[in-house]
Amino acid sequence: MGCIQSFRQCCDRPKNTNVRISLPAVCFVWQIAMIILFGIFIRYNEESDAHWIEHKTSKNISSNIENDYYFRYPSFQDVHVMIFVGFGFLMTFLKRYSFGAVGFNFLIAGFGLQWALLMQGWFHSLDPMDGKIKIGVESMINADFCVASCLIAYGAVLGKVSPVQLMVMTLFGVTLYAVEEYIILSLIHARDAGGSMVIHTFGAYYGLSISWMLYRPNLDQSKHRIGSVYHSDVFAMIGTLFLWMFWPSFNSAISDHGDGQHRAAINTYLSLAATVLTALAISSLSQKTGKLDMVHIQNATLAGGVAVGTAAEFMLMPYGSLIVGFCCGIISTLGYIYITPFMEKYLKIHDTCGIHNLHAMPGVIGGIVGAITAAAASEDVYGKEGLMNTFDFTGEWKEMVPTRQGGHQAAGLCVALCFGIGGGIIVGCILRLPIWGDAPDNSCFDDEIYWELPEDEENNPPTVEYNNHMRNKAV
Amino acid sequence: MGCIQSFRQCCDRPKNTNVRISLPAVCFVWQIAMIILFGIFIRYNEESDAHWIEHKTSKNISSNIENDYYFRYPSFQDVHVMIFVGFGFLMTFLKRYSFGAVGFNFLIAGFGLQWALLMQGWFHSLDPMDGKIKIGVESMINADFCVASCLIAYGAVLGKVSPVQLMVMTLFGVTLYAVEEYIILSLIHARDAGGSMVIHTFGAYYGLSISWMLYRPNLDQSKHRIGSVYHSDVFAMIGTLFLWMFWPSFNSAISDHGDGQHRAAINTYLSLAATVLTALAISSLSQKTGKLDMVHIQNATLAGGVAVGTAAEFMLMPYGSLIVGFCCGIISTLGYIYITPFMEKYLKIHDTCGIHNLHAMPGVIGGIVGAITAAAASEDVYGKEGLMNTFDFTGEWKEMVPTRQGGHQAAGLCVALCFGIGGGIIVGCILRLPIWGDAPDNSCFDDEIYWELPEDEENNPPTVEYNNHMRNKAV
Amino acid sequence: MGCIQSFRQCCDRPKNTNVRISLPAVCFVWQIAMIILFGIFIRYNEESDAHWIEHKTSKNISSNIENDYYFRYPSFQDVHVMIFVGFGFLMTFLKRYSFGAVGFNFLIAGFGLQWALLMQGWFHSLDPMDGKIKIGVESMINADFCVASCLIAYGAVLGKVSPVQLMVMTLFGVTLYAVEEYIILSLIHARDAGGSMVIHTFGAYYGLSISWMLYRPNLDQSKHRIGSVYHSDVFAMIGTLFLWMFWPSFNSAISDHGDGQHRAAINTYLSLAATVLTALAISSLSQKTGKLDMVHIQNATLAGGVAVGTAAEFMLMPYGSLIVGFCCGIISTLGYIYITPFMEKYLKIHDTCGIHNLHAMPGVIGGIVGAITAAAASEDVYGKEGLMNTFDFTGEWKEMVPTRQGGHQAAGLCVALCFGIGGGIIVGCILRLPIWGDAPDNSCFDDEIYWELPEDEENNPPTVEYNNHMRNKAV
Repeated sequence: MGCIQSFRQCCDRPKNTNVRISLPAVCFVWQIAMIILFGIFIRYNEESDAHWIEHKTSKNISSNIENDYYFRYPSFQDVHVMIFVGFGFLMTFLKRYSFGAVGFNFLIAGFGLQWALLMQGWFHSLDPMDGKIKIGVESMINADFCVASCLIAYGAVLGKVSPVQLMVMTLFGVTLYAVEEYIILSLIHARDAGGSMVIHTFGAYYGLSISWMLYRPNLDQSKHRIGSVYHSDVFAMIGTLFLWMFWPSFNSAISDHGDGQHRAAINTYLSLAATVLTALAISSLSQKTGKLDMVHIQNATLAGGVAVGTAAEFMLMPYGSLIVGFCCGIISTLGYIYITPFMEKYLKIHDTCGIHNLHAMPGVIGGIVGAITAAAASEDVYGKEGLMNTFDFTGEWKEMVPTRQGGHQAAGLCVALCFGIGGGIIVGCILRLPIWGDAPDNSCFDDEIYWELPEDEENNPPTVEYNNHMRNKAV
Repeated sequence: MGCIQSFRQCCDRPKNTNVRISLPAVCFVWQIAMIILFGIFIRYNEESDAHWIEHKTSKNISSNIENDYYFRYPSFQDVHVMIFVGFGFLMTFLKRYSFGAVGFNFLIAGFGLQWALLMQGWFHSLDPMDGKIKIGVESMINADFCVASCLIAYGAVLGKVSPVQLMVMTLFGVTLYAVEEYIILSLIHARDAGGSMVIHTFGAYYGLSISWMLYRPNLDQSKHRIGSVYHSDVFAMIGTLFLWMFWPSFNSAISDHGDGQHRAAINTYLSLAATVLTALAISSLSQKTGKLDMVHIQNATLAGGVAVGTAAEFMLMPYGSLIVGFCCGIISTLGYIYITPFMEKYLKIHDTCGIHNLHAMPGVIGGIVGAITAAAASEDVYGKEGLMNTFDFTGEWKEMVPTRQGGHQAAGLCVALCFGIGGGIIVGCILRLPIWGDAPDNSCFDDEIYWELPEDEENNPPTVEYNNHMRNKAV
Repeated sequence: MGCIQSFRQCCDRPKNTNVRISLPAVCFVWQIAMIILFGIFIRYNEESDAHWIEHKTSKNISSNIENDYYFRYPSFQDVHVMIFVGFGFLMTFLKRYSFGAVGFNFLIAGFGLQWALLMQGWFHSLDPMDGKIKIGVESMINADFCVASCLIAYGAVLGKVSPVQLMVMTLFGVTLYAVEEYIILSLIHARDAGGSMVIHTFGAYYGLSISWMLYRPNLDQSKHRIGSVYHSDVFAMIGTLFLWMFWPSFNSAISDHGDGQHRAAINTYLSLAATVLTALAISSLSQKTGKLDMVHIQNATLAGGVAVGTAAEFMLMPYGSLIVGFCCGIISTLGYIYITPFMEKYLKIHDTCGIHNLHAMPGVIGGIVGAITAAAASEDVYGKEGLMNTFDFTGEWKEMVPTRQGGHQAAGLCVALCFGIGGGIIVGCILRLPIWGDAPDNSCFDDEIYWELPEDEENNPPTVEYNNHMRNKAV
């Protein structure tokens, strides 16, 4: 702790928020790198290549409709909306950081998905024949998933970092994600269709660790800007609702064709519905006169979707989904009321969007629910073939049994936690270097720093008065 | 009328808007009841169960793509957006009730869809073999449909009721809906793919009757809050457009695979396009200088989608759809100009969102159009098999003929009307009891009552100054 | 130029913005004309007709899922969202023209799509057997595409024209579109899946030419209204993001079943991602302190989707898409910084939304990229059948070779340019007639002219002052 403290002090030089060189440089260099790497490595897979017709004949596929595109593209589009509108608008709640919320979200996602295609491709879809990565609609979904974990992390540091820091955070975040995903899904053979562990647990602890490393003791100077105005809360509800509505697509996007996708959508739909009621209930209970708090409605109502992620494709049963949603609505709302202030005060972790309550805790719960559900699986419930399909007990995992699968699921959760916390601490150290153009403590949560702002009439009362004056004169 | 009046007076005690006990209690108890009932009754259907593979083999289904999920899931997602973003944002137009609009909409829908799965399941998909309700993607769509009728009803009482009242209204609304739906679709064998009768007519008259029972003679005290501000009108347009755009999915979501869904989408698309033009035209005509009124654009442009609901899957023909849309745009806009003020003044029905113009009248028109189109159906136009398929002349309805089907459609409309008006009056009586925490007459349409509001700089200048003062002191 | 000048002067009479007669008249008459023409000409095609079952049997189609509806409906819905929410909200950025942006967008699209179904039907899907136009889901997508070109044109004249002018502009725009589309796609046999040429190049030059013809030398009088406020910029981001996210669906909506749609989606996805980075980089570079400009983020980030339109279904390769996006992000942003002011000052073309940077230049680039990619196509890359399918070398075009196809693509681009500029000048002349009710120079970009505005507290400072006064008294 002492060494961290001294490192912190060494980094606390006066801030220069001019990113005119660094931001364009990072964008250009990295984008050019992407083009070169894509040129070397990335090609269409057989379902998106013009040779599809020949492939179709050779594989005896009867119709174009069996192209994976038609199984997954609607889900992809829903996930895509969650990434850009969902996460982007969810973070617009701050009164003067809406541009940064939606704009930097856009930047992170735009870069992250390219890098994710490469990183995930190297691990998962490298064609041994020609050394190329073959991409299709499933790769696009996976890239969006990977980006989601970085956007979750952004939630913790919202308003306190520069766009250059965000790019660095995304670069490392995507890299770490691809590695942990490979370990969890391929080496450990855990299942995680909706990414409770791989996306949410990892992303949230990654962000929280970074936020811890970047702790600003004097953030009080910007405290008056942490808060919403009436209309910024309505904007944030756009984000909430698009996340909430499309979460069934998120959790079912890459699960098995047929019953797998179908079941994942149903489970998520139910879990989220239950969360709405308990989140509202706790929110109302927490106030003297039973008033509701928009922060809870905007965030805690989503916890059920996170927590049902891993088990969504399993035979969790409809009531099981409701129970998961029920518990998470309570825990997440209580988190906003008690844990977030506690973490800020005692653990020195400032969590702007409360991702600990929305992603970290529900993600861990999701991992545990997944482990239990997997361990409890039986041929009775799944059918012989169903069990094999759902848990992918094929190839080298042919001898796997559900109880052991439960253990593997738990192991996967641990890996996600380790990568999140460990990776976050290391990346946080890097981001403390005084070269990234982040804002001084008294200018956090302010779009003024990185955006040309319109001259709002509301914000410049002198101008308004002046105008009125002129108008009156004219009359 | 006398007895109603006296009942009204007995209920008019001083209001206590503290819902700190009642709202959480209702949410928790009902959610726990849902979990128990789901545990007892609800299971996956054969297309979402892990036994799908065996089912597929036994039914000789060649590919996973023939799982109902792939026929209906994209439509389901569109319907889902209509329910949460469409209805939610449509109601944000009030200057100080946006939180209540979108937040309580969220609550109603979150609870309603669970209860709807049960109620509709008992009537429609109870498996006689094991006494379980089997759910799949179509059940989710139907649950969303059912919720839509309650959200329509919410439009009439927006800003005048407490969240606890809304929960009660939803509980009864869903129950009534399931019964009338069963009578109309199963007993009477009327067809109603887009729910002109079942959803819109029922929902609107249900809401209007409740609003009538809850009439507040002194609502004038809150009159200054009934109205929009510039940006709240733009928010409401988000709701309008998502409803408008996805209405073709709404009307085609549960119609027949293949041509049925295809035709329903086309008819709705056309009808809505025509409505836009006539709604605008009447709106412009109604003002001295031809200015347009946002209320009409936000609402009346949707009437064509309501009115084409029942007949959408029939061979209404493209020009038929245009005619329906043409008429409804006119009638709905005229409704906003003449009928809503009339109803408030003379019938003592205050209709905040004008659902009478958007859902009630177009719903009835839709029922009539459906009856006429059905009665006029012929083997010439539909083909022998087409006629049988479209109107489901199978099983015990094998001997049905189109002309008689027209009569059955008309009977269905009457049932929807009776259930809406009758049910609304009874539920309205219950909601008048002075125990639900609704707002006093001078605090309607105000989020202040049920929501923690952000301290807006624009709205509370004294408060802000005070805060700044305190902050400066602290520093 | 002299004659144009004198024509201009002759048209510059005092303005009367009362559209109470003209707007309803146009809406009613044209809508009735639509009904009549639809009655005469438009019928369901075989996939949306109730005879589908018989058709299915006769064509040996094994399952309902092979109805074109299931291939294209999800894409259609995404395109639909782009047209109404995407274009509509993208234009809400002006501080006092959000109603006009989203409302007139709605009007144009509502009328345009009906007229487009007819015009495109006459050229493309007239059934020679019975002289009827047969419509299905693909017709709906094409109609939306056609409308897109008119909405692009609207971007150039936003805030400066009356709704009646917009209707006229749409009537001619759709007509011209249908003709140029027929020439480019059918006569010249150019391929243009995403419409870089047909939609964007044509639409943008059509709008710019009209804006040139309608040039207002004294527009400075409304200059203070050209600009955004904080929340109007956030609204515009809704438009941006829905366009950005759904652009892969736009470019793949009508491309070939199977690999064609799949590849088009991937290419567009990648191109757009690259554009985000370079648009941000140039935006940051252009400001002294590296601040970002919302105008660039809202618009230039979309240029990659435009430019990849023609080549999206070709084997452009993933890195090719990135390169296209990379260049367009730079060019488009530079356009906003340098070309738009230049055009206004020296060419007398005022371009409110900067469509020259977002649609015109990227559209032309897209046409060129398409020509090059087509010319470079080989059997090696596409496979024999793949080449034939992708470029539709069938029927009378059986002997076509890629190099010649490249020439045809270039010819298509020229046709689009000619129709856009030529058509725009002619229609612009018509729109200068002093009968359309457009606003005087000092009332442009103001919703006040055509909309009943709510009495905003912010806009009526006397009221606010009065309220404050009252509040202070109360304290």
